[in-house]
Amino acid sequence: MTIGVCYFPEHWPRERWERDVDQMASAGLEYVRMGEFSWGRIEPERGQFGFEWLDEAIELIGDRGMEVVLCTPTATPPKWLVDERPEILQEDLDGTMREFGSRRHYCFNSAAYREETDRIVTRMAERYADNPHVAGWQLDNEYGCHGTVRCYCDDCANAFREWLGDRYDDIGALNEKWGTTFWSQQYGDFEAIDPPGPTPDEHHPSRLLEYYRFASDSVVEYNRLQAEILRDIDDDWFLTHNFMGHFPTLDAYDVADDLDLVSWDSYPTGFVQDRRSDDPTVAELRAGDPDQIGLDHDIYRGALDRPFWVMEQQPGDINWPPHAPQPADGAMRLWAHHAVAHGGDAVMYFRWRRCQEGQEQYHAGLRKQGGSPDRGYADASAAAEELFDLDPVDAPVALLHSYENLWATNIQPHSPDFDYWNHSGTYYRALRRRGVQVDAVPPERSLDQYAAVVAPALYLLDDALAARLEEYVESGGQLLVGARSGEKDPHNKLVDAQPGPLADLVGATVDQHESLPEQVPTRVTFDGEEYDFRTWAEWLDADDATIRGRYASGPGDQQPAIVDAERGEGRVAYCGVWPERELADAVVGEVLDRAGVASHPPLPDGVRIAERDGHVWVTNFSDSPVSVDAPTDATWVIGDANVEAFDVGVVTGSVGDVTVTQR
Amino acid sequence: MTIGVCYFPEHWPRERWERDVDQMASAGLEYVRMGEFSWGRIEPERGQFGFEWLDEAIELIGDRGMEVVLCTPTATPPKWLVDERPEILQEDLDGTMREFGSRRHYCFNSAAYREETDRIVTRMAERYADNPHVAGWQLDNEYGCHGTVRCYCDDCANAFREWLGDRYDDIGALNEKWGTTFWSQQYGDFEAIDPPGPTPDEHHPSRLLEYYRFASDSVVEYNRLQAEILRDIDDDWFLTHNFMGHFPTLDAYDVADDLDLVSWDSYPTGFVQDRRSDDPTVAELRAGDPDQIGLDHDIYRGALDRPFWVMEQQPGDINWPPHAPQPADGAMRLWAHHAVAHGGDAVMYFRWRRCQEGQEQYHAGLRKQGGSPDRGYADASAAAEELFDLDPVDAPVALLHSYENLWATNIQPHSPDFDYWNHSGTYYRALRRRGVQVDAVPPERSLDQYAAVVAPALYLLDDALAARLEEYVESGGQLLVGARSGEKDPHNKLVDAQPGPLADLVGATVDQHESLPEQVPTRVTFDGEEYDFRTWAEWLDADDATIRGRYASGPGDQQPAIVDAERGEGRVAYCGVWPERELADAVVGEVLDRAGVASHPPLPDGVRIAERDGHVWVTNFSDSPVSVDAPTDATWVIGDANVEAFDVGVVTGSVGDVTVTQR
Amino acid sequence: MTIGVCYFPEHWPRERWERDVDQMASAGLEYVRMGEFSWGRIEPERGQFGFEWLDEAIELIGDRGMEVVLCTPTATPPKWLVDERPEILQEDLDGTMREFGSRRHYCFNSAAYREETDRIVTRMAERYADNPHVAGWQLDNEYGCHGTVRCYCDDCANAFREWLGDRYDDIGALNEKWGTTFWSQQYGDFEAIDPPGPTPDEHHPSRLLEYYRFASDSVVEYNRLQAEILRDIDDDWFLTHNFMGHFPTLDAYDVADDLDLVSWDSYPTGFVQDRRSDDPTVAELRAGDPDQIGLDHDIYRGALDRPFWVMEQQPGDINWPPHAPQPADGAMRLWAHHAVAHGGDAVMYFRWRRCQEGQEQYHAGLRKQGGSPDRGYADASAAAEELFDLDPVDAPVALLHSYENLWATNIQPHSPDFDYWNHSGTYYRALRRRGVQVDAVPPERSLDQYAAVVAPALYLLDDALAARLEEYVESGGQLLVGARSGEKDPHNKLVDAQPGPLADLVGATVDQHESLPEQVPTRVTFDGEEYDFRTWAEWLDADDATIRGRYASGPGDQQPAIVDAERGEGRVAYCGVWPERELADAVVGEVLDRAGVASHPPLPDGVRIAERDGHVWVTNFSDSPVSVDAPTDATWVIGDANVEAFDVGVVTGSVGDVTVTQR
Repeated sequence: MTIGVCYFPEHWPRERWERDVDQMASAGLEYVRMGEFSWGRIEPERGQFGFEWLDEAIELIGDRGMEVVLCTPTATPPKWLVDERPEILQEDLDGTMREFGSRRHYCFNSAAYREETDRIVTRMAERYADNPHVAGWQLDNEYGCHGTVRCYCDDCANAFREWLGDRYDDIGALNEKWGTTFWSQQYGDFEAIDPPGPTPDEHHPSRLLEYYRFASDSVVEYNRLQAEILRDIDDDWFLTHNFMGHFPTLDAYDVADDLDLVSWDSYPTGFVQDRRSDDPTVAELRAGDPDQIGLDHDIYRGALDRPFWVMEQQPGDINWPPHAPQPADGAMRLWAHHAVAHGGDAVMYFRWRRCQEGQEQYHAGLRKQGGSPDRGYADASAAAEELFDLDPVDAPVALLHSYENLWATNIQPHSPDFDYWNHSGTYYRALRRRGVQVDAVPPERSLDQYAAVVAPALYLLDDALAARLEEYVESGGQLLVGARSGEKDPHNKLVDAQPGPLADLVGATVDQHESLPEQVPTRVTFDGEEYDFRTWAEWLDADDATIRGRYASGPGDQQPAIVDAERGEGRVAYCGVWPERELADAVVGEVLDRAGVASHPPLPDGVRIAERDGHVWVTNFSDSPVSVDAPTDATWVIGDANVEAFDVGVVTGSVGDVTVTQR
Repeated sequence: MTIGVCYFPEHWPRERWERDVDQMASAGLEYVRMGEFSWGRIEPERGQFGFEWLDEAIELIGDRGMEVVLCTPTATPPKWLVDERPEILQEDLDGTMREFGSRRHYCFNSAAYREETDRIVTRMAERYADNPHVAGWQLDNEYGCHGTVRCYCDDCANAFREWLGDRYDDIGALNEKWGTTFWSQQYGDFEAIDPPGPTPDEHHPSRLLEYYRFASDSVVEYNRLQAEILRDIDDDWFLTHNFMGHFPTLDAYDVADDLDLVSWDSYPTGFVQDRRSDDPTVAELRAGDPDQIGLDHDIYRGALDRPFWVMEQQPGDINWPPHAPQPADGAMRLWAHHAVAHGGDAVMYFRWRRCQEGQEQYHAGLRKQGGSPDRGYADASAAAEELFDLDPVDAPVALLHSYENLWATNIQPHSPDFDYWNHSGTYYRALRRRGVQVDAVPPERSLDQYAAVVAPALYLLDDALAARLEEYVESGGQLLVGARSGEKDPHNKLVDAQPGPLADLVGATVDQHESLPEQVPTRVTFDGEEYDFRTWAEWLDADDATIRGRYASGPGDQQPAIVDAERGEGRVAYCGVWPERELADAVVGEVLDRAGVASHPPLPDGVRIAERDGHVWVTNFSDSPVSVDAPTDATWVIGDANVEAFDVGVVTGSVGDVTVTQR
Repeated sequence: MTIGVCYFPEHWPRERWERDVDQMASAGLEYVRMGEFSWGRIEPERGQFGFEWLDEAIELIGDRGMEVVLCTPTATPPKWLVDERPEILQEDLDGTMREFGSRRHYCFNSAAYREETDRIVTRMAERYADNPHVAGWQLDNEYGCHGTVRCYCDDCANAFREWLGDRYDDIGALNEKWGTTFWSQQYGDFEAIDPPGPTPDEHHPSRLLEYYRFASDSVVEYNRLQAEILRDIDDDWFLTHNFMGHFPTLDAYDVADDLDLVSWDSYPTGFVQDRRSDDPTVAELRAGDPDQIGLDHDIYRGALDRPFWVMEQQPGDINWPPHAPQPADGAMRLWAHHAVAHGGDAVMYFRWRRCQEGQEQYHAGLRKQGGSPDRGYADASAAAEELFDLDPVDAPVALLHSYENLWATNIQPHSPDFDYWNHSGTYYRALRRRGVQVDAVPPERSLDQYAAVVAPALYLLDDALAARLEEYVESGGQLLVGARSGEKDPHNKLVDAQPGPLADLVGATVDQHESLPEQVPTRVTFDGEEYDFRTWAEWLDADDATIRGRYASGPGDQQPAIVDAERGEGRVAYCGVWPERELADAVVGEVLDRAGVASHPPLPDGVRIAERDGHVWVTNFSDSPVSVDAPTDATWVIGDANVEAFDVGVVTGSVGDVTVTQR
């Protein structure tokens, strides 16, 4: 378990560097990431390379026993390159060029940029191939940040046509699978298919979905190009990429397949402001939402089923969310422990020192711009001291997470309030409120190891996946399927009757669905109690399932809403509404109980427990203290049974052994 | 009175068709509309025509005694045509092309597209000229949907210049009539006048209004082109077009002049969400607003003063509004009866079967995508059985409705809250709350047949119209003129003193006007009582009229607000505010009483009565039941004196005979 | 003290002019402004000049003893000129041309437009050089209206590069001063630097700030071009420009340097709706916010430290704000007196007569479009009669106002709620609530004459300014520095420790800052009392200052928030929060008391007093009457001790002598 930091020696005078690295070492840091935006410094003019500064910085770091994670600098092609080869720039859907002046202004499908990438990555890799201090590489930086996965330039148009040609036997097959008879959208050949542009009305959903897949695949291909170069030159170092939170346009699982290690960038007080549908509480503004961050931990851990890194950990106040509250005292330490509890093996703070130039001047570092310690420094040092080695997390439950389903529901959400992330988050939160570890994995992953599987909005379905889920249940698995499952086939065409190939397993079909604004009463029963739901309702025909809940409002009153059924050794439940919190607790709780998964009664807001390698973490993101009741023979490795606001405690044992109560 | 359906055989396998048409016939359907988006199927490549499928479908329908309404397929030019002749595409005000990928992507002024239209329409018309099952044609589909009336391409620029040249003697006349001295906007010749583009500040209102007129005229001309082709080939079939609800950019009256039958597309739960200024109630989300739909019925009936068709009637849940609630039980039947009560002769449900491909997968049909009956099927069958033949509606009151006034008030609304549709809707609702049938007609229509005329926001006025209104009143008519009347001349230039040429008739002029946000108190008296008004206030100078109401708030306190005057045999009232509901009830009620129009005291929300051919319809769009008190000798043709929520009753008699009370 | 009017004889028939000017003269008007949009009338075709109409109008006005302010007509280049030389048009950041059809569609850097400007201005100036009735010139009209300061065309790109070349020794110096190592934003030469365009993420703040400076300088240069032509031809007439309210993109102080007289356009009921962050009250909708208007008076008076003119005074209801309420009775008179109280010497109403054509038909004049008097006419006549000659205002306090700080805080506001105008407005309002006259001056102005100086958000700071402020304090000045001072150097780069070069004077540095949304509790103490603050908090390290206030909420609880310190003969206070009204009253009140400035206890909302030349104005913008207690020997020059709602009273004496109470 390691603490590290991101460092930009190029922003500071050479004479300062020794002091910086000394301070890093004395804080217990073990890794330093460098170089991700340094192309302009490394190659100020074409072919004029200047690596000496980086050589020196690596040397200084290595001298102090720390290791370096180097980055390829491709996220920021310099101005001379853009001027020479302007065709590398991205283009918006309406034809507007995305110009030089910030970052991520290149197109993943640009042949010119792939050449330049090859050139710079090869050069850097060759220089550091034998360097003993370079442990690994981060490829590029935050693919897709600022909405840059989807580009609409001519290179992309041609690549899209080729990509389609590879996936369909001929244009007739494409027309058939998309269903282009609708509104006379037939194509005579692949050349006739453009990227989606500005149109009077919305686009064909099958065409859009394929463009979204293609765009994500373009990043995967670009990333693979870098990975192959680096591996060809030296296969000892590890390769990683730093993903970003709940990102909407890139399939992180696909990119991860070419990496050795998955890392991501965690900014709790930012994400709670800019990518959640409800307003943050004051405590969340100060420390974030542990479930929002936790789901990302679990996705990126799940990507390679291997411990992840937080490559950038928020160090204090940050520049990009709407508001920039100071984090609570201790929050920077809490986040590190929370990451470890979720299976992280390293937490790298971003950045060492607040920068005095450019776009991120309002982003804190562990040190202030003047060099003195900032608020995060003591937290980071404390975390570095407290961490200890651990085996990976062993999660009893899988949450099926799919970028294709995210894209497809974004294309036709059928409600301004239906959001894939938030809908999945409802189920994830219910699991976490019971202290259960969760692997967030793609649906194609083997599920044998899981006692229970939760599948919210398994929107696109084919027979193969349905068969695997059936096998899972019949072999004794507990499967909970959420609303909007099996609506479409993989080409985004409506099935004959939802949930399509899952209908036999579930024993019910969807008779009607409706989406409802907030002012409409939305009540439903489950197991004899009445609950609220929101946004989405499916009226079920339960041919071969037990009706567990019925609507208690609207024209669907008394229609079945929630069903379950035994199948072989296991059981499948289908929840035809988007449950509000209490209903989600009830439905998920029942599944966990049946699966025999040890769990805690629903925990208070902001308080979470998590088990890893024989230890239980109690992370308190709330502004109230809690008491932990643990067995008498348990040992408090960090803290004690009183966990203050924004504090953490770690005790030996397992989740089933502890009880947490608010004081 | 007829029920029918819209059908897309091209979306389904040939082997399914017999079953489909059998089911239509057994449901009592009499008409089937087809073909409106089928160009790509009819002509997959230039000159390669494939009509056989359509021949067969028509034959199957005809065999079962149903008739076909065919559509010209011009709303969706196929991709090969766009690729061959990209100049047919529309262009936005900022120069962005409206590309292929949805529908309505062609420019009405494109010479190329007119050629192609001629070619495809001629070909289709010739093929079906002798077909006994083809009763009529729908020309194109929903002109103007997705904001496509106004295009800004070069073809439009040239056509606009020609159009102006035809309307003005010379450029000097144009400069004079527009008033281009303002901000040095003089033009040296017609060639100098472009379509309105992106400008630092707003456009000249006279230029904009002429562009809006020109754009509407371009659709009229394009529609006429199709009508002439069809009539030349066979003058037995009827020609219609399916207009759309409260559409803002196209003068439906002008288009109708080239048609035999006016039809429109009615989606009550959609329109109440996306084109009304206040939030819908829960009942309205389930069944729509009868006055919003009713006004459209009355506009499209008024267009040719002839029974209209609902060409597309909402069949269940739909895809395009923000939310997609399931309609109330029975709503699909209620809407059919409501249309008939307003003078409709046919109601065609859209569509037969939910589509599994493309943009409208979330739009219900009478049958589910799998083929089984959906919620609307029983409603449609019931309506088909219940309907009986009727004479046209005979409305005692006219509401003057003018697209030019809509455009001109949109150009200079002078308040974010002033909306022509909603302002007219206030008066329309007051009339409907009293159960009175209304013809919504253009101001140039003869008014002799009406006992009363309501004219809200008769914004643009010339002497001829003023003279006709004067004649109407002096011959005994009751005229109610609303605020914002006579502000401008027909070129959108301010008159010397509002209401311009109506001043003598009204006996008052507007001293001041003001527009007011919600937080300002807006009170006014009428006939001794105090009422609320909203948004707009005119302080009147009543030279030759009786002051009936005065302001009771603000700096205009005690200024005259509402006046009336006897003129010859009739009377004219002028209401200088936008009345809230109670004031509208009072003002309109008085006019009706004076006109001797039989009416009901203001009906409850959602409950409406309407008289046609010796029968009274009680349509209940509310979620509460009502009781109807009818004469003892009246006969209940449909239902009985207890009309449940979302139900309908039809009783013999006239509006003056019945009383409706909430139970 | 003078009343005048803006007149457009070109909009009216020649036979009307005598009556118009007779009525002006009889109302007591002394100046008439003309010609600012008349290019199309003066030169209908290239080289075909027609000045006769203007000659005649001037003659008629002069004959009646009134004087003329002529305008150069460059705000509206006519269509023939745009067609001949389309390169004069402005271009948006995304490349969209700003086309003909409104006004201000030319680029300040267009070489072509500078030639045309030279031609038309020279021609006009030569024609009227010897005209005895032309007193002065208004150059162009409302520079920057409709967001037209910043253009992104090729002419601007080249001019920007030249401008940068003039300001930096070489490209290396630019790279160093901007800090372009960040995200590889180095430039190889000046040619590589473009105007900011569409980019994936935000722009480099140093590049943006320089573009904003350059754009403002371009207007200054363009204005100077006109000023030089006019002065060369005749140096007797005065030169002015009519600025607009709180304008965000143009440095009015810089433009003023080339003028003899500063004027501005005052629209109180418009500005209170469209450029203030909180909703207006009903009284403000009727008469505006005296502090919002007052700050503009004081900025434009401060620009040349000389009496200003209101070149356009709102005459009644106006067309461009969201809502158009009628002003309160008397408001048009109140505004004139308020302007005079703030040091204005002339108030010109806009316009003489409501226009019947073009974009401003909904803008009142002193006369209605038909010619009869409108609501403002009596008010203007009354003001003309009441005004008397006065010496300039002598303000004891300076408010430092800086456009560069406005631009830089707009570039990185670090909170959606931080607005430079509103933050400065908080301090300005606190001063005005105490009846104190304020000069709003740029920071580089000499401060010797002021007893106290208030400096909110002195964001960009260099050593020279810090030294001058230090000298000011040490010589006995009272300085109040607001939050966000000294954050950046003049190139928009973060200083080592805020407030940078002011740290020694203040005796404190900023340890942390945070921005907070409304829902977070924000409490702070000052002088033993607890108060609210908003949006922004700085935790201070008070090395050498007295801690006067501490946070009373959040993680910064008990951190110092407000400090002060004696320095030499004076004292400096630093307020690290954005104070809500009560705290601003307390902090500002203390500074005034220490400075020995005579003041009134905080006045009621909307009621303001102001002293000029031995008289005290009591201007009542509220809808409640007030009583004024003045010394027995004081003389009421206008009104009396009972000042009604929307009324004014003027009494001899000074601010310290009177007491105002609400009745």
